[in-house]
Amino acid sequence: MDMGLSKILKQSLSRWMGGDGPHNSVAISSRVRLARNLANYPFPGQASSSQLEEVEHKIRRWWNQGGLKSLGKTEYTSIKDISKNERRALVDKHLASPNLARQGHGAVLTNSEESISVMVNEEDHLRIQTLLPGLQLDEVWQLASGVDDLFDTGFDYAWSQHNGYLTCCPTNVGTGMRASVMLHLPGLSLSGQLPIFLGTISKVGIAVRGLYGEGSDSQGNVYQISNQVTLGHREEEIIENLNRVTLQVIRRELDTRQQLLKQGEITLTDKIWRSYGILANARILTSSETLEHISRVRLGIDLGVLEELHPSILQELLVFTRPGYLQKIFGQSLGPKERDVKRAELVRELIKQ
Amino acid sequence: MDMGLSKILKQSLSRWMGGDGPHNSVAISSRVRLARNLANYPFPGQASSSQLEEVEHKIRRWWNQGGLKSLGKTEYTSIKDISKNERRALVDKHLASPNLARQGHGAVLTNSEESISVMVNEEDHLRIQTLLPGLQLDEVWQLASGVDDLFDTGFDYAWSQHNGYLTCCPTNVGTGMRASVMLHLPGLSLSGQLPIFLGTISKVGIAVRGLYGEGSDSQGNVYQISNQVTLGHREEEIIENLNRVTLQVIRRELDTRQQLLKQGEITLTDKIWRSYGILANARILTSSETLEHISRVRLGIDLGVLEELHPSILQELLVFTRPGYLQKIFGQSLGPKERDVKRAELVRELIKQ
Repeated sequence: MDMGLSKILKQSLSRWMGGDGPHNSVAISSRVRLARNLANYPFPGQASSSQLEEVEHKIRRWWNQGGLKSLGKTEYTSIKDISKNERRALVDKHLASPNLARQGHGAVLTNSEESISVMVNEEDHLRIQTLLPGLQLDEVWQLASGVDDLFDTGFDYAWSQHNGYLTCCPTNVGTGMRASVMLHLPGLSLSGQLPIFLGTISKVGIAVRGLYGEGSDSQGNVYQISNQVTLGHREEEIIENLNRVTLQVIRRELDTRQQLLKQGEITLTDKIWRSYGILANARILTSSETLEHISRVRLGIDLGVLEELHPSILQELLVFTRPGYLQKIFGQSLGPKERDVKRAELVRELIKQ
Repeated sequence: MDMGLSKILKQSLSRWMGGDGPHNSVAISSRVRLARNLANYPFPGQASSSQLEEVEHKIRRWWNQGGLKSLGKTEYTSIKDISKNERRALVDKHLASPNLARQGHGAVLTNSEESISVMVNEEDHLRIQTLLPGLQLDEVWQLASGVDDLFDTGFDYAWSQHNGYLTCCPTNVGTGMRASVMLHLPGLSLSGQLPIFLGTISKVGIAVRGLYGEGSDSQGNVYQISNQVTLGHREEEIIENLNRVTLQVIRRELDTRQQLLKQGEITLTDKIWRSYGILANARILTSSETLEHISRVRLGIDLGVLEELHPSILQELLVFTRPGYLQKIFGQSLGPKERDVKRAELVRELIKQ
């Protein structure tokens, strides 16, 4: 591997991957997503190819004319102009959805720190998404709201007095907003409390998902929690409710980590160092084994056991060791076995920095 | 742990632990043991306490008068004069047997490089033992024979024209000699060929044992092979036969390692590096887990995968991580759990040199 690679990878970090932000020992990132549609066009799922093309051209023209210039430097990427590996890399960085990556008339707008990404012609015409590190729900909401205002100036949104913003999927109608927090919960997981705890949370209007959205596994002890309700509440109320629940989860996770330390510091420390030893030395690493170990390594960083590693190693490995990103990095189409070898190579390089 | 400890440990290496010698990638050490008894005294098992004491005094007096001075500096250690941990440490270095360590009237004579050790009042009055690194059966036999001649000058041996040397256990009668080689067989073990192969060997008059003698497990893929017959053959014939079989085992082991490399270099390399990663980082290590990993690490050294480690790391960990040695080093009586923690501490120190 090129020795400069890890430097290049560090430069390609999105803002949300920085490992900083409030409550960053548990909260990885905060996200708000707004679903919006243009009036007078069918939703993408019902639209003809030429209608989709028209929507995309309209938005691109508006962007070209400086529709987003108040956000600083932004980039417009048409899905059809980039390779399959580059599309997967966008998905791995949470800047695009797997759906969008398959959409011929899709596009993504991003700002330079990738705290803002706008998907064009995903399930809705516009999906405005903002992402920041740590627990910053108010901040991502304000940021998304600002972007929303810009689009609102340029386009007629599909909207009704009674239902609010009209969206393709009924669960998004109303505010069209989904706010979520990505949380690292190794303590609750190790202590066996997680299933019951997450069950309780889902009873207070909060949805729990694995790392890569709906239906995905909770690999690496990373969970997304988000609001289930979009209709009948103001955005600020939804954000406040999610924030309150998140703070409870964080407190519980931190308490559990301290309990685990008290119950058996050497046992926990041993697990952490073994995971570090495997990541730093293995020559073959599957994706799920990598996530299992990086979760423990990150716990070790947060507990002060592993002092020389930066917290962002978790986010880096979450993203860079995904199949799409690996292929982007090594510039080739890799079979699963080759990926496991290249993944191990990459992990060693990143963890030894 | 005291930072100078690993230096002290290195200085306490016996000659056989040096990791060198002919065929040292497979043959750890060669040993000859001669069982001898003094005429006119019952074997230790049948002797009274005062008879045992008399034998011990007799031998000590003879040693004091320079009986072994042609061997250079030698040391006489009475079992009753040393602590329990020091006794166990002698066993761990293969200089005394567990039996002797329990014998109140026992003693051990050693030369400075510990290639010679003579047990007094073990199963027989004298057990002359020589140990050298690698495959050096002729050399250990010559060395033992020389020591035997010295004792023969000083004492009347129990001997008969018909049976040769008389010994406590009938299986030692005749030459009274047991020659053995300690072999590291990770290749045959990993390939699954070992059980069949060892079965074949035992059919040609060769006994196979685990690391710590009769009845012990084959931990760390280390095996002792030795002659079964002591009567009816000259010592040189026995040595030659064992040497021939050993060379066959070594060739087979080396071939198998190359086959394993061909079949899956990355798989094997991965196992080696993972074992290294665990030894270098774990905070809790049981004895058997340590042996499992050190076997792979040593294989890695022999295959040129781990370039910065010295081959003697295997012997060092075989000896220094034993319960007796650990307690000698850390100067205390340790429970099993504490030993696992101290063992991990010691392993990290030694492997990071």
